Amino acid sequence: MILDREAARRLDEADPLAPCRASFLIPEGITYLDGNSLGPLTAAAARRIARVVDEEWGRGLIRSWSESGWIDLPRAVGAKIGRLIGARPEEVVVADSTSINLWKLLAAALALAGGRRVVLAAEDDFPTDLYMMEGLARLLGDRCALRRTADPVSALDSEVAVLALTHVHYKSGELRDLTAVTAAAHAAGALVLWDLAHSAGAVPIDLDAAGADFAVGCGYKFLNGGPGAPAFLFVAGRHLGAAESFLPGWMGHADPFAFERSYRPAPGIARFRCGTPPVLSLAALDAALDVLLAAPWADLREKAMALGDLFLDLVEARLRGHGFSPACPRDAARRGSQVSLHHPAGHAIVRALACRGVLGDFRAPDVLRFGLAPLYLRFVDVWDAVEGLRQVMDDRAWDRPEHRRRGVVT
Amino acid sequence: MILDREAARRLDEADPLAPCRASFLIPEGITYLDGNSLGPLTAAAARRIARVVDEEWGRGLIRSWSESGWIDLPRAVGAKIGRLIGARPEEVVVADSTSINLWKLLAAALALAGGRRVVLAAEDDFPTDLYMMEGLARLLGDRCALRRTADPVSALDSEVAVLALTHVHYKSGELRDLTAVTAAAHAAGALVLWDLAHSAGAVPIDLDAAGADFAVGCGYKFLNGGPGAPAFLFVAGRHLGAAESFLPGWMGHADPFAFERSYRPAPGIARFRCGTPPVLSLAALDAALDVLLAAPWADLREKAMALGDLFLDLVEARLRGHGFSPACPRDAARRGSQVSLHHPAGHAIVRALACRGVLGDFRAPDVLRFGLAPLYLRFVDVWDAVEGLRQVMDDRAWDRPEHRRRGVVT
Repeated sequence: MILDREAARRLDEADPLAPCRASFLIPEGITYLDGNSLGPLTAAAARRIARVVDEEWGRGLIRSWSESGWIDLPRAVGAKIGRLIGARPEEVVVADSTSINLWKLLAAALALAGGRRVVLAAEDDFPTDLYMMEGLARLLGDRCALRRTADPVSALDSEVAVLALTHVHYKSGELRDLTAVTAAAHAAGALVLWDLAHSAGAVPIDLDAAGADFAVGCGYKFLNGGPGAPAFLFVAGRHLGAAESFLPGWMGHADPFAFERSYRPAPGIARFRCGTPPVLSLAALDAALDVLLAAPWADLREKAMALGDLFLDLVEARLRGHGFSPACPRDAARRGSQVSLHHPAGHAIVRALACRGVLGDFRAPDVLRFGLAPLYLRFVDVWDAVEGLRQVMDDRAWDRPEHRRRGVVT
Repeated sequence: MILDREAARRLDEADPLAPCRASFLIPEGITYLDGNSLGPLTAAAARRIARVVDEEWGRGLIRSWSESGWIDLPRAVGAKIGRLIGARPEEVVVADSTSINLWKLLAAALALAGGRRVVLAAEDDFPTDLYMMEGLARLLGDRCALRRTADPVSALDSEVAVLALTHVHYKSGELRDLTAVTAAAHAAGALVLWDLAHSAGAVPIDLDAAGADFAVGCGYKFLNGGPGAPAFLFVAGRHLGAAESFLPGWMGHADPFAFERSYRPAPGIARFRCGTPPVLSLAALDAALDVLLAAPWADLREKAMALGDLFLDLVEARLRGHGFSPACPRDAARRGSQVSLHHPAGHAIVRALACRGVLGDFRAPDVLRFGLAPLYLRFVDVWDAVEGLRQVMDDRAWDRPEHRRRGVVT
């Protein structure tokens, strides 16, 4: 049991991932526990963006679409992400936002489902996923029925076309068993669509081994692609021939620059591209991924679990009587790279903590959420975060008007 | 009639817009006639991107969503674009790509059309628009019929729900009469959706005065937002209450950070946002727009027409007998900020011209296309472009194997 900062510091000394922190430009005085909302800037991304702006856009101009390989970035970056999620290069592409990609794949899954029309979802999954499902159901009328329930896996039946679930829950950090749930859906004759927004880059994923059908995920959380970085999508190789895009923009055409009058889908995953990709953000994501891909997975996951256990141990040992209760699984194997706590004054506490340089975030109604990215976080950061919490509670620093106003915390 | 470079240079000396060129970082030795495909870098955008990366992302991290105003950028940048297209600030928002926005507004228009189900389009409009219409029609089955014709305005009838047209044709540069076509559609009881991709920032537009219903447009052409910059969309104020988004992501929710379980549309144009916006590209677009907004519109349009007339005059006078014929209207009032020419060896000619530093582009099967952005182009640039064409033809420089291979020209 670690009960002083020096012991945490010794863990950092022994950490094989410690050198990775140097790849990130974490500001002095900041303990950053919000990389699950916006990953921090890497030196590689900063250099790459400067190059794209000055050389490729500034000097190369239109020629950079071919000469700097912009046109191939969605596939190339998708292939890199594939290595993090157990997918072959031809199964992943970067495009649009997570919301749009989820919609594309839901519509594709329904069209493949042989007359089944139910989309099954967890009632408390990330709201944008639920909203996009609602939008599709509204548009399709009686060709789609949305079924939302607390325990979707138990609700699988012969009417379900597609089960759509997040892999790691955005608020609780709970990690679903991707393999077992996929198998259960298939046993019921349903397809599965995974939202990996809070798991890609944070926990080991093997979509192909699990036999998953579809997946989407976010570029700006644990993949560190920068604010609003484009998202990715995965379609299992066996569906690539038949799965259709109902948002068929020119970049998903078999030959975009032939400017044909009718849509002809690109032969593989590229058909799920739509419009012209945001090159600056895509290049930043590309560069940031190299940092992640250079680190060994086993070490990453082990350290993430240890950081989470330390956080929860310290909360139990040092914040007793302050009204916190865990909002995440205590068992590290069932948790993504984050911890969360309930507290009725959660929002004000998160704000007061930020004034001390510890950045986490708040999720209504009462959840304090802390992302634990093992690439750049140290054990002393966890110590400092809980120490910050202790001070905020001891001083009642959260109970001030400036912390009680509502702010945007994403 | 101008027949030497010195006369062109004198026009530049008298040009009230000449100082605007200094805001752009056009590379030495390049005559850039492809700003209708990818607008060039401005010093303002370069500075802004560096600030967003280093200070806002790097140091501000997650706090920048509120403290640097990222969350408001889609509305703020939309309001700026509104000034270029005759729309009120509350009628325009920046989101997604042109393709996605077109789809959103087509779906919204169909839902408003009181049972009419025909989407009417021009058969040779920009392909991604046609592909997105096809995608919506495939998804909706018998609730949507796509009618494509050479002369859509004549095909208006009581079955047409929405007429969707580009304002300036991507290849011919032909400028449609937005006011007259809108009136004709309304007279037939149809709604109108304009694609302003090749006209926003290039020709004066007054959507509100024309009574237009919907519009979309591109951030990376004449608005100079950078490669893959996000697009915009316009919904007339009178439709804002009833028009629905069927791609209802969390950023279009009335209260995104309440994380409600069901979608509640934002009260106005913001409901047409979807996922998290690409901040780097959005900020670049924001900065680039200031350059455009500082220039007087009357001068911009007048100069653009003069540049086009000079180009076509010089082609007639100096390229006679080389097989070119105009692919755009000769009358400047019927032309956007571009000229185009037919030539059977068009692709090889564009490539050979690029080797001389004159960048235009090619559109299959035989069109050479030259964008004429009056903010940074000089009359001598037009002279140099046609002189480059003359040399390429006189030397038969285009007739070399390296120019005959297929390349990506967007």
